[in-house]
Amino acid sequence: MHVSDIARKSRQAALKLARLTGPVKDRALDAMAEALDAGLSAILEANARDMEAAVKEDLAGPLMARLALNENKLRGMAEGIRSVGRLPDPVGKMLKQTELDRGLILTQESCPIGVIGAIFESRPDAVPQIASLCLKSGNAAILKGGREAQHSNKTLVGLLTRAMASVPGVPPEAVQMIETRGEVAEMLKEEENIDLVVPRGSNAFVKYIQDNTRIPVLGHSEGICHGYIDAGADLERAVPVVLDSKLQYPAACNAMETLLVHEDIAPAALPRLMTEFRAQGVELVGCIKTCSLAPDMARAVEEDWDTEYNDLKLSVRVVADLREAVEFINAHGSGHTDTILTEDRARAERFQNEVDSASVLWNASTRFADGFRYGLGAEIGISTNKTHARGPVGLEGLVIYKYKLAGEGHTVAGYSGDGARRFTHRQLYPKPQVS
Amino acid sequence: MHVSDIARKSRQAALKLARLTGPVKDRALDAMAEALDAGLSAILEANARDMEAAVKEDLAGPLMARLALNENKLRGMAEGIRSVGRLPDPVGKMLKQTELDRGLILTQESCPIGVIGAIFESRPDAVPQIASLCLKSGNAAILKGGREAQHSNKTLVGLLTRAMASVPGVPPEAVQMIETRGEVAEMLKEEENIDLVVPRGSNAFVKYIQDNTRIPVLGHSEGICHGYIDAGADLERAVPVVLDSKLQYPAACNAMETLLVHEDIAPAALPRLMTEFRAQGVELVGCIKTCSLAPDMARAVEEDWDTEYNDLKLSVRVVADLREAVEFINAHGSGHTDTILTEDRARAERFQNEVDSASVLWNASTRFADGFRYGLGAEIGISTNKTHARGPVGLEGLVIYKYKLAGEGHTVAGYSGDGARRFTHRQLYPKPQVS
Repeated sequence: MHVSDIARKSRQAALKLARLTGPVKDRALDAMAEALDAGLSAILEANARDMEAAVKEDLAGPLMARLALNENKLRGMAEGIRSVGRLPDPVGKMLKQTELDRGLILTQESCPIGVIGAIFESRPDAVPQIASLCLKSGNAAILKGGREAQHSNKTLVGLLTRAMASVPGVPPEAVQMIETRGEVAEMLKEEENIDLVVPRGSNAFVKYIQDNTRIPVLGHSEGICHGYIDAGADLERAVPVVLDSKLQYPAACNAMETLLVHEDIAPAALPRLMTEFRAQGVELVGCIKTCSLAPDMARAVEEDWDTEYNDLKLSVRVVADLREAVEFINAHGSGHTDTILTEDRARAERFQNEVDSASVLWNASTRFADGFRYGLGAEIGISTNKTHARGPVGLEGLVIYKYKLAGEGHTVAGYSGDGARRFTHRQLYPKPQVS
Repeated sequence: MHVSDIARKSRQAALKLARLTGPVKDRALDAMAEALDAGLSAILEANARDMEAAVKEDLAGPLMARLALNENKLRGMAEGIRSVGRLPDPVGKMLKQTELDRGLILTQESCPIGVIGAIFESRPDAVPQIASLCLKSGNAAILKGGREAQHSNKTLVGLLTRAMASVPGVPPEAVQMIETRGEVAEMLKEEENIDLVVPRGSNAFVKYIQDNTRIPVLGHSEGICHGYIDAGADLERAVPVVLDSKLQYPAACNAMETLLVHEDIAPAALPRLMTEFRAQGVELVGCIKTCSLAPDMARAVEEDWDTEYNDLKLSVRVVADLREAVEFINAHGSGHTDTILTEDRARAERFQNEVDSASVLWNASTRFADGFRYGLGAEIGISTNKTHARGPVGLEGLVIYKYKLAGEGHTVAGYSGDGARRFTHRQLYPKPQVS
C-alpha cells in the first residue's frame, strides 16, 4: 500500500478513535496485553529470525541486546500496556470554561492530536509502548521501526492490531506500519494527514527529520546535563547525588556530562570527587583551575563542554559564582536537565529560575528526569522542544484541545453599534481564586 | 548587524526577560504606551513617507487602508498595549505539583518560550501588538514587517524599545527588527536561537516558512468554515446566525464559506436563505440538490468545496444527515471553525465531538472564534496547528513550562535493589478531585 493511502486510512481511523470512550479504549488495551501473552511463541520465533540476521550482519553488542526478546521482556511489555490502561483518560477533560455572555458558554476541552508518525530504532519494545499510548490518547499511529527488528515488529503489530480491532468500534487501522526508508521519506510529506512526528534516535537523525518535513516534530536533541556544586553545598549530601547523576546509568540522556564546582568549595570537593569517580572508572577532563587542584587530571578541550559522552567520562570546571554557572549551562547545555547542589534555598531558587532547561533540579540526581519517575505513568519520549511539550512527555503530550462554544442564536453583529450586547467573559472553570 | 548576531542578542535578552517580575513587565508596557502617545507626530510623519511610496507604487486599496495610520489608530494601539498590561502574568504559574517521594517535590511551572520570530504584512499595528504580547510573556521578539510599512515600523520599534529599556532590568534587545527578505531566509536558519516562528499572511506564505525552517511554526492555513443547518434547527434562530457567519465580515478567516443543509429542512430553509443572501449581494453556488430547490442558482464545481472565498460568495450543499455533514466538514474544512444550528442537544454534542476543528460551535456565529471574543484578552493569531496551541491563541500560546524538582540529596540508585525506596507519586496540585 502506498504511504499516502496509509496516511489517509490513519486519518479516517483517527476520527473514529477520537470518539471512543475511556472504557472502550481500556478494553482494547486489555485485549492487546492478552494478545502479547498469548502470542509469546510467535513473537519469539519472529525475534529469533531477526537475531539470526543480526548475527550474520555482525550487529554491535548493545544493539543486539536491545533487539533480543525473551519471555520476561514480553511479560513486561504486556504489563506496560496494562499500566497505560490504568491511567486516567486524557481525552475529553474540561480545561477551561468561560461565559462569554448570557447563554454563550465557551469550553476548552482536551482531544486527541490525530495521527502520530513514530520512527524508532532497533528496540521492539517501542511497538507496544507507542501503540498503547497512542490508543489511550485516541490517536492513530503509523510506526516505522528499525530494519533489524522487522520480523519482530511485524508480528507484534499484527497481534496488537487484531486484538484492538476485536473490540467493537476500534478500527484496525489505528496502528499501521511502514517498513522502508523510502516510505519514511514519503511519510514526511504527508502533512495533510499526519499531525506530529515523534522520532526516537540520534541527534543527527532528529535533525534530518526536522529538515525534511513540514509536520511538527516532537524531538529530542542531545542531553548535555550539568551538575553544579554551589559554595553552599553540604558535601555529605552533594557527593552521592553527583555520583548518581553520572554513574547510575551513564548511557542515558539524563546522565551528567559536565560538573561545575564553585571555586570556594572546589578545594574540598574536587579531590574527594575525583577519587570516587576514578574508583568507578570514570575518565576525567578539567579546566585549568580544576587541573591545578587535581594535578594528575587531563585538560579538557573546548569541544568537551559541548559533548554528550553517554559514557564513563566527565568534564569538570571551576566557576567563580552562581551566575557564571548559570551562564555556562545556558550556553553549553542542551536544555535537558541540570541540577544544583546547595543548602542555600535562595540560590537554589535563582538557579531553578534562571537555567533555561526542561528540568532544573535541586539536591536531586539528574537521573530523576524521566516520565516514570515524574509520575507521568508512561513516557512517549523526552522533549528538548520549547513548544507543545517539554521534558519527559507522557500522554498529555499526545493531546491538544478544541474549543466548544454553545449559544442560543448569538450573532457577532449583536455586539456592535447602538444598544449592543457586551461580553461578560466570566471564568466558570477553573473557579477563579479569590485573592 | 548580521541576523545570527541579532538572534544571539535575542537569546541573551530572553534569558533576562524570563527573570522579570510581573510588575516590572507592566511598567515597561506602560512606558511603551506612553511612548506611542508622546511619539504621535514622529510616527505619523514616518507613516506619511510609507503612504507616499505606496501611492507611487500603486498599492492596492485594502493594503493602503491597512497601512495608513492616524491619531485614532495610534491611540488604539496605546490602549491595546495597556490592556495587555492588565492581563495576569502568564509566567511562573504553578501548573502541577507532585510529591515523588518524601522530601522530593516536582513542580511544573509556566515559563517563556524564549525567542519568537514574527513575520507579518503591511499592517503596522502588528508591531505594538506583538511586542507587547512577547514582553508580557517574557519572550524576546524579532520582528519582520512588510516592506511597504518600513518607515512606520522602524519608528515604532525605535520608540517602543527605548521606552521599555527605560525600565531597569528590561534589555533593549527584547524587541529587534529585521528588514529584508534575505534576512528572513537567514532568520529561518537560526534554530539554535529562535524557538518559534509566527508568520501572519497567506496560506502559501505560511507553507513557504514551514518548508524552509526547522523552527516550530505557529501557523495559520486557510479558514474554510462551515455552517450546518440540522433537521432539528429552529429557522428563526438559525437564519440570523448563518447570515452573521457569512456577512458580518466576509474577509475574515472565521467567516463561513460553505453552508450545509439537512435535506429534511432544505425545502423550508433554502429559498428563504437564498433570498436573504442575494439581497446582501452574496453570490451563491450549490450542489445539484440545492439547485433543484433553488433553480436559478449556479452549480458549484468540485473546487468550490475546498475554497476560502474571503468574499461575498457562498457554496451551499444539501446533506442526507448529520453524519454526512460531519464527514464532509472533516474532509473539506480546514479545521478552523464550524457551527451547527439545531435545537437537538444530542446532535449538537455529536457534532461538537466529531468535527475535528479548533472551534466547533452550536447555535452561534462562526465569527465568534476570535481571541478577543473568547476572552483571551489579546491574540497573537489563530492557529490551525494540531500541536502546542490551537484556535485563537493568546498569551498562553507564548509560554511553555519547566519542571522544578527539589530534593534532599535523593539519588535514583536509592530506588532499586533490596530495601529500595518507593515513589509515592502523590498529586499535590491541583488537588485531586474526590470522586
